Amino acid sequence: MARKLVVRRGAKVGAPPGTLVHIGKHKPDSAAIRLIGYTPDELSESVIEDMDSYARETDAERILWLNVDGVSDAAVVEKLGALFELHPLVMEDILNTDQRPKVEDYQGYLYIVLRMLQFDQGRQQIHSEQLSLVLGPNFVLSFQERPGDVFEGVRERLRAGRRIRFMRTDYLAYALLDAVVDHYFEMLEYIGEQVEALEDQLIDAPGPDTLARIHHYKREMLLLRKSIWPLREVLSRLSRDESTLISEETRLYLRDVYDHAIHVMDSIDTIRELLVSMLDLYLSSISKRMNEIMKVLTIFATLFMPLTFIVGVYGMNFDVMPELRWRWGYPAVMALMLVIVVGLLVFFRRRRWI
Amino acid sequence: MARKLVVRRGAKVGAPPGTLVHIGKHKPDSAAIRLIGYTPDELSESVIEDMDSYARETDAERILWLNVDGVSDAAVVEKLGALFELHPLVMEDILNTDQRPKVEDYQGYLYIVLRMLQFDQGRQQIHSEQLSLVLGPNFVLSFQERPGDVFEGVRERLRAGRRIRFMRTDYLAYALLDAVVDHYFEMLEYIGEQVEALEDQLIDAPGPDTLARIHHYKREMLLLRKSIWPLREVLSRLSRDESTLISEETRLYLRDVYDHAIHVMDSIDTIRELLVSMLDLYLSSISKRMNEIMKVLTIFATLFMPLTFIVGVYGMNFDVMPELRWRWGYPAVMALMLVIVVGLLVFFRRRRWI
Amino acid sequence: MARKLVVRRGAKVGAPPGTLVHIGKHKPDSAAIRLIGYTPDELSESVIEDMDSYARETDAERILWLNVDGVSDAAVVEKLGALFELHPLVMEDILNTDQRPKVEDYQGYLYIVLRMLQFDQGRQQIHSEQLSLVLGPNFVLSFQERPGDVFEGVRERLRAGRRIRFMRTDYLAYALLDAVVDHYFEMLEYIGEQVEALEDQLIDAPGPDTLARIHHYKREMLLLRKSIWPLREVLSRLSRDESTLISEETRLYLRDVYDHAIHVMDSIDTIRELLVSMLDLYLSSISKRMNEIMKVLTIFATLFMPLTFIVGVYGMNFDVMPELRWRWGYPAVMALMLVIVVGLLVFFRRRRWI
Amino acid sequence: MARKLVVRRGAKVGAPPGTLVHIGKHKPDSAAIRLIGYTPDELSESVIEDMDSYARETDAERILWLNVDGVSDAAVVEKLGALFELHPLVMEDILNTDQRPKVEDYQGYLYIVLRMLQFDQGRQQIHSEQLSLVLGPNFVLSFQERPGDVFEGVRERLRAGRRIRFMRTDYLAYALLDAVVDHYFEMLEYIGEQVEALEDQLIDAPGPDTLARIHHYKREMLLLRKSIWPLREVLSRLSRDESTLISEETRLYLRDVYDHAIHVMDSIDTIRELLVSMLDLYLSSISKRMNEIMKVLTIFATLFMPLTFIVGVYGMNFDVMPELRWRWGYPAVMALMLVIVVGLLVFFRRRRWI
Amino acid sequence: MARKLVVRRGAKVGAPPGTLVHIGKHKPDSAAIRLIGYTPDELSESVIEDMDSYARETDAERILWLNVDGVSDAAVVEKLGALFELHPLVMEDILNTDQRPKVEDYQGYLYIVLRMLQFDQGRQQIHSEQLSLVLGPNFVLSFQERPGDVFEGVRERLRAGRRIRFMRTDYLAYALLDAVVDHYFEMLEYIGEQVEALEDQLIDAPGPDTLARIHHYKREMLLLRKSIWPLREVLSRLSRDESTLISEETRLYLRDVYDHAIHVMDSIDTIRELLVSMLDLYLSSISKRMNEIMKVLTIFATLFMPLTFIVGVYGMNFDVMPELRWRWGYPAVMALMLVIVVGLLVFFRRRRWI
Repeated sequence: MARKLVVRRGAKVGAPPGTLVHIGKHKPDSAAIRLIGYTPDELSESVIEDMDSYARETDAERILWLNVDGVSDAAVVEKLGALFELHPLVMEDILNTDQRPKVEDYQGYLYIVLRMLQFDQGRQQIHSEQLSLVLGPNFVLSFQERPGDVFEGVRERLRAGRRIRFMRTDYLAYALLDAVVDHYFEMLEYIGEQVEALEDQLIDAPGPDTLARIHHYKREMLLLRKSIWPLREVLSRLSRDESTLISEETRLYLRDVYDHAIHVMDSIDTIRELLVSMLDLYLSSISKRMNEIMKVLTIFATLFMPLTFIVGVYGMNFDVMPELRWRWGYPAVMALMLVIVVGLLVFFRRRRWI
Repeated sequence: MARKLVVRRGAKVGAPPGTLVHIGKHKPDSAAIRLIGYTPDELSESVIEDMDSYARETDAERILWLNVDGVSDAAVVEKLGALFELHPLVMEDILNTDQRPKVEDYQGYLYIVLRMLQFDQGRQQIHSEQLSLVLGPNFVLSFQERPGDVFEGVRERLRAGRRIRFMRTDYLAYALLDAVVDHYFEMLEYIGEQVEALEDQLIDAPGPDTLARIHHYKREMLLLRKSIWPLREVLSRLSRDESTLISEETRLYLRDVYDHAIHVMDSIDTIRELLVSMLDLYLSSISKRMNEIMKVLTIFATLFMPLTFIVGVYGMNFDVMPELRWRWGYPAVMALMLVIVVGLLVFFRRRRWI
Repeated sequence: MARKLVVRRGAKVGAPPGTLVHIGKHKPDSAAIRLIGYTPDELSESVIEDMDSYARETDAERILWLNVDGVSDAAVVEKLGALFELHPLVMEDILNTDQRPKVEDYQGYLYIVLRMLQFDQGRQQIHSEQLSLVLGPNFVLSFQERPGDVFEGVRERLRAGRRIRFMRTDYLAYALLDAVVDHYFEMLEYIGEQVEALEDQLIDAPGPDTLARIHHYKREMLLLRKSIWPLREVLSRLSRDESTLISEETRLYLRDVYDHAIHVMDSIDTIRELLVSMLDLYLSSISKRMNEIMKVLTIFATLFMPLTFIVGVYGMNFDVMPELRWRWGYPAVMALMLVIVVGLLVFFRRRRWI
Repeated sequence: MARKLVVRRGAKVGAPPGTLVHIGKHKPDSAAIRLIGYTPDELSESVIEDMDSYARETDAERILWLNVDGVSDAAVVEKLGALFELHPLVMEDILNTDQRPKVEDYQGYLYIVLRMLQFDQGRQQIHSEQLSLVLGPNFVLSFQERPGDVFEGVRERLRAGRRIRFMRTDYLAYALLDAVVDHYFEMLEYIGEQVEALEDQLIDAPGPDTLARIHHYKREMLLLRKSIWPLREVLSRLSRDESTLISEETRLYLRDVYDHAIHVMDSIDTIRELLVSMLDLYLSSISKRMNEIMKVLTIFATLFMPLTFIVGVYGMNFDVMPELRWRWGYPAVMALMLVIVVGLLVFFRRRRWI
Repeated sequence: MARKLVVRRGAKVGAPPGTLVHIGKHKPDSAAIRLIGYTPDELSESVIEDMDSYARETDAERILWLNVDGVSDAAVVEKLGALFELHPLVMEDILNTDQRPKVEDYQGYLYIVLRMLQFDQGRQQIHSEQLSLVLGPNFVLSFQERPGDVFEGVRERLRAGRRIRFMRTDYLAYALLDAVVDHYFEMLEYIGEQVEALEDQLIDAPGPDTLARIHHYKREMLLLRKSIWPLREVLSRLSRDESTLISEETRLYLRDVYDHAIHVMDSIDTIRELLVSMLDLYLSSISKRMNEIMKVLTIFATLFMPLTFIVGVYGMNFDVMPELRWRWGYPAVMALMLVIVVGLLVFFRRRRWI
C-alpha cells in the first residue's frame, strides 16, 4: 500500500510550534519557484533560481503569483515567509503536508489549505497532494508538494490577457480553487464509469477479483470523502465571511464553486451507497448460486442413494436369498427403482426444486 | 447504462467562468423557443424562429413567458442572456445541464434550477432533465433540455383566462414549480406500485431476476434522492426569503409546494427502506430454503450410508463369512437395517428435522 | 396489498391550485355532518341533512363543533368553506386526503392536518385516515374520511357538562388532538405485544412465516413513522407559537400532548430496532442450525465413506485376492474398520464437532 | 416477558385531562409516606399513617422532604396535590407511571420526572420505575412506584447533619438526582462485565445460548437508552434555565450530574456497538467454521467416491472381464487407486484446502 | 480483558459531593510531585518530598508548573487544592479518574480534563489515563495517574530557555495539550499500519485469527472514539471562549490543536469504516470460497453417483441377468458410463461451473 491511512506527525511531538521541518512524502531535489507578475497591461513570467537574490516587488497595483513546486525545502518556505510576513503557524502548516482543508484569516492575508487530487489509472488509486494558498492584497502564493498541477488553463488565460488580468488577487485565487474542484469532477466521472462497468460485470459474470475491486473503490471513496468533506466549510466561509480581501463580485463566483463542491460530495456519497448496494447484490447472488448448486447435489444424492442401496442388497452373497432365484427378479428390481425415481422427481417438483 | 453517475465537467477545466459551452447529453438540431405573452385581457402565443429578429417587449404590464426547448444552442442562450441582462454565471449554469437544484438571487431577477424527471417505463429508468427558471418582474424564462414537458396544464389555464392570468410572474413560476413537483408524485406512485408488486412476488415466488430488480430500484431511488434532496432548500428559501419579486400571497402557495416536496422525500425514503427490508427478507428466505434443502440431503445421506455399508459388508467375497451361510441371515440383516432406519428417524424427529 | 406506498396525486397535475376535487380512497355515499353547539349552560346536538339550508350561527359566545364524516363530497366542503371563509388551499388540502401532518396559521383560524390511525387486527395492518381540524375563535371544524372515530369520549365529556364546556375552542381542539395521540398508544401497545409474542416464538420455534411477519411489522412501522413523524413539529409549534387563538393554559396541555407524541415516536423506534435485532437473531440462528445439520452430514459421510470403500474392495471379483482366502480375513477387516471409526471419532472430538 | 415494550395508556383514552387514575404495574396495598423535616439545627423523621390528619407546615425556613412509596393510591396523590397546590397535569403525570423523563416549570415549583432503574440479576433484566420530584421553595416531594430506593445515602447525610442540612431544597433535589444517576453507573458496570464475559466466551467457545444472550443484552440496552436519553435534556435544562428555585452554586453541581449522564449515554452506546460487533464476529466465525466442515466433507467425498466406483467396477459379475483373470490385476487396481488419492491430495494442497 | 468498559463509580453512591476518595485503577505507592518554576530569566526544578512543608510562592510574575504523578493519594490532592483554592468538585474530579474530557471555567482558573493514551504494542491495546490540568494566572497544575508522560519535549524547551519561557501559563497549557494530541497521531499511525497489514493479509491469505483481530481493532477504535470525541468540544471552547486567562495569540495556537483533534477524529472514523468494509470483504470471500468448495463436491458427487449405481447394478447376483452373459457387456457398460460422464461435464460447463 503506497498511501498511509494516517500520516506520522510524530517527528513534531514535543517540538515547539513553528519548528520548520518538512513532514511529508514527496521529496524532489529542490523547490522550483515560478513567478507570474501582471497588470491589466503587461505580464511577465520567470523562474526564481536563487531565493536569496529575490526581492519582493513593491508596486501595489501589480499582482504577483508565486507558485512553489515541492515544499520539502524548508529554507525556501522560511525565506518566502519572511518576505511576505507570514505567521510561523502558517509556515509550519505549509510544510506539514497532511493538513485538513481549512481557511484561516490572518492579519493582512488569508491562508487556505486544500487537497489537489490525481487518480493514478494504473494502480487505480487516488493520490492526494496538499495545496496551500496565501491570498494577500496584491500577491497569491501557492505551494504544491510535487511538480504538475491543474493550473495550466489559468496560466493560459492570464497570458491571453483575458478578464482575469483585470481582476484582483481574489479572482485569481477563485480561478485556482475552481480549477481544483473542476478536476475533482473529471476524476469522479472516471471512477463513476469504472464502478458502473464493475456493476455490469457483477450482474453478468462476476470475476474472481470483483469483490476485492468493490472493496478497493469503497476504500478510495472513504479517503476521498475524508479529503473533500472539510472543503465545503472552507468554500462556504470564503463566500460568506467578511474578509476585505474578497470582493462582493468574487463571492458570487465562490458561491458557484461551493455549489460544485456540494455536488462533488453528493456524487461521492451516491457512488459509496451504490458500492454498498453492489456488495449486497454480490452476496445475495452468491447465496442464490449456492442454493442452486446445493439443489443439484441434493437431487442427485437423494435419487441415487436409495438406488445404490437396493443394488447393494442384491449384491449380497447370502446363500438363502430367494429373490435372486426368481425368473423376473432382475426386471422387478429395475421396475422398483424406476418407481422410486419417479416418486422422488414428483417430490422435488412439488418443492419447486426442478 | 444510459445515464452516468457523474457527468463530465472536464470540458470546462481551466476555462474561465462564463465560457458558454453546452455541457450535456441531449443535442436536438436547434432550440425551439415558444413565447406566451399575456395580460388579464389578452394572450398571444408564438414561436420564435429567428432569435436575431426578436426584440424584447417593453410593456411592463404584459407578462412574457419564454420557454426554450433544447439548450445545446449556446448562441440562443447568449442572445437571450443579453436581452434580459443575465449574469454570465447564470448563462453558464443554464448551459451546463448537470446543476444541483438551487435558487440564486441576482439583481432584478431570481435564478432557479431544478430537475424535471421522466420515468421511462420500458427501461424502468428515471431520466432527469435540467429546468432553469429565470423569474423577472414581468418575464419568466424557462430552459429545458428536450422538447416535452409537464407544463401543458399551465398553458391550458393561461389560455382559458383563469385566475393565473390575473396574477404576476411569481404566480406563473409557482404554477411551473407545482407542475414539476406534482409530476414527481405521479412518477413515485408508479414506482411504488412496481416495488409493491415486486414485494408480493418476493414472498410468493422469487424469480431469477428479483434480486437484480431490487438492486435496480435501489439505484434509481439513490439517483432520485440526489436530484430531489436540494429542492427542499430551494422551495424553503423561496417561501421564506425577502425577495421583492415574490408576493406574500404566492409565498403561501410556495409553502404548499414545499410541503409536497417534503412529502416526496418522505416517500422516497420509505421506498428505500422498504427495498432494504425486502433484500433482507430475500436473503433470509434464501438461507431458510438452503436449510431445508440441506436437511433433505442430510436425512437421505445419513439414512442410506449406514445401510449401503451393511449391504457392502455382505457383498464381500471372503471364503469364511459364517453369516452368509445362516438360514435366517438375509432376513436378519434386513431387520437390522430396519432398526437402524427407525433409530435414525427418531433421532431426526428429536432434532425437529422431520 | 390494500394500502399504497404513494398515493396518486396525478389527477391534480396541471390543475390550478384550489380546484376542489376529492383525491382519496374512501367514498361513502354522502357526507354526514354532525353539529354540536354549546355554552357553559346548554348543549345541542344535531345532524345537518341539507347543507344548503344550514346557516352559520352568529353568537360569538356559543362554541360550534362541526364534524364531517366523509370528505368525498366536494360540494359540502366548498359550502362549509364559504360559510367559514376558508382559504382555497385549505379546502383543497381537506379534500386531498394524503397530506402530511402540518399546522398552518391563516388569518383568523388555524388549519391542522393529522393522521387518525386504526389497526385492523384481522389483516394486521394499520389504516390511516386524514383528520383536518379548523380552529376558529368560536368554531372547530373536523373533517374525517370515514365514519367512526376516537372522539366518543370527548362528546361524553361535553354532554356531561364537564370542565371542557367552560373552556374555549382551543381546549376542544386540544381534547381532540389528545384523543388521537392517546389512540396511537393503544395501537402501539397492541403491536408491541404482537412483536414480543413473535420474539418469543423466534427463540423457541421459528415457524415458516416468522420471517414474513417480521418483515410485515417492519413495513407497518415504516408507514407509521412516516405518518407520525411530522406530528412532533405540529404539536411543538402549537405549544410554542404566538397565535392568539390558543391560550397560555391550553399551551400547557398541548405541551403534554407533545410529550406523548415524542413518547410514541420513541416507542416506534424501539420496536423498529427490536425488529432489526430479531431479524439478525433469526439469520444467525438459521446459520447455526445449518452448521449443526452440516456437522451431522459430514460426520456420517466421513465415517461411512471409508468403510464402504473397504467393503467394496473385498467385494471385487479378482481371481487372485489372497486376503479373501485367509481364515481370519473377515474379522481382520471388521477390526480394521473399527479402528478407522474410532480414529475418526477422536478426530471429530478434537475439533469439538461431537 | 415481564416488561412491556409499550405501556397501555388506553384507560385514559377520551378521559378528560386531570382524571386521576393510577396507570402502572406496581400495586402495593397502600402508599407509605415518609416525612423528613429539617433545619440546620434539627431534623425529624416520621411516617404519615393517615393522610387526612396531615397538615402542611408553614415554617418557610424548615425544609420538608415527603417521600411517597407506591403511587397507586390516587387519593393520597390528590390530597398531597391539594396541600401543595399542584397542577392537575402534574398529579396525572405522577400517577401515569410511564412518562418520559422531563422537567416542567410551573408557577412556584419545578416538576421533574425521571426513571429509577434496577437490574434484576436473576432474570438479567432491567426494571424501571418512575420517580417524580416536585421541587418547591421549602419542600421536595418524591413519588416512587415501589418501596426500596437508592436514597439511603442521602438520608444518612441528612441525619449526620452534614453540609446538605445547611443548603436549600435545590441541593436536596440535586442529591437525589445524583444518587439516581450514580446508580446507573453501578448497573452499567455490572452489565459491561457480563457483556465482556460473553465476549470472551464468544471467541473461546460459543455456547448454544450465546446468540440469544447477545440479543437479550441488545434489547436491554435499547430499553435503557429509551429511558435515559431524555434525561440529558432534563439535566441540561436544570443546569441552564433561569428558574429562581435553583441557585448558581447548585447549578454547578447539576452540571456535574449532567456530565455523568452524558457519560452514561456514552457507555450505553459503546456497549451497544460492541454487541453489534460481537454479533458480526459470531456470524463470521460460524461461516468460517461451516467452511471448515464443508472442506472436510468435500475432501473425504472426493477422495472416496472415485475409489468406491473403481472397486464397484471390479465387483461386477460380467462373464467376460479379462482384468479379473490377470495375475497382477488386484495389485494394479490398488496402485491405480493410490495414484488417484495422491493426485487429489496434490489438487487440494494447491487450493490450500489442506 | 484488562480494561473495563464501564468503571465502577459505585463507591461514591450516596456519598456527598466533594468526598475525596480516589476512584481508579493505578495505585502507586505515593504521589511524586515535580515542580518547575520559571521566569524568562531563570528556571528551577525540584521534587516536593513532603507536601506539608511546601508553601505556595507568591511572586505573581514567576510561573509554576506542578506536575503530580499518581493521584491515588487523596491527601496530596486535598493539600494542593487548599493551597490553590480549588473547588471541592474539581478535587473530586481529579481523583475520580474516569471523567469525560471537559473544560470548566471556575472563578480564577480553568479546569481541563483530557485522556492521555498509550498503545501497549504487546497486547495491542490502548491504555487510557486521565490528565487533569488546572490553569491559573501564574500556575499550571497537571495531575496524571501514573509516572511516564509525553511532556519531556515541553520540559526540554523550558530548560533550553526557548520562546515558551517568555509566554504566560496559557501557552504552557497549550504546549501540554499539543503534546497530548500529537501523541494521538503517533498512536493512530501505528494502528493504521497494523490495520493495513491486516487488510493485505485478508486479501492474500486470511489466517485463523484474522476475524478476531478485525473485531479487536474495531473494539479499540470504539473505546478510542469514546475517549477523544468530547475533546473536540473542549478545544473548540478553549479557542473561542472569552476566559481572560487565555490570550488572543494563544487562541490561534489552540485553534491549531483543535484542527489536529478534528483530524484525529477523521482518522479514527476512516479506520473504523475501513474495518467494517474489511469484515464485509472477509464474509464475502468466505462465501465465495464456500461456493467453490461446494462446486467441487457437487461435481464429484454428481459424476460418481450414477456411475457407482451402474456398477452396482451389474454387481447384483440375480440368476437371470442376460447382460452379464453378453460378450461385449463389459465394454458396453464402460462406454455407457463414459457417455454419462461427458453429458454431465457438458451440463456443468453450460452452468459455468467448470
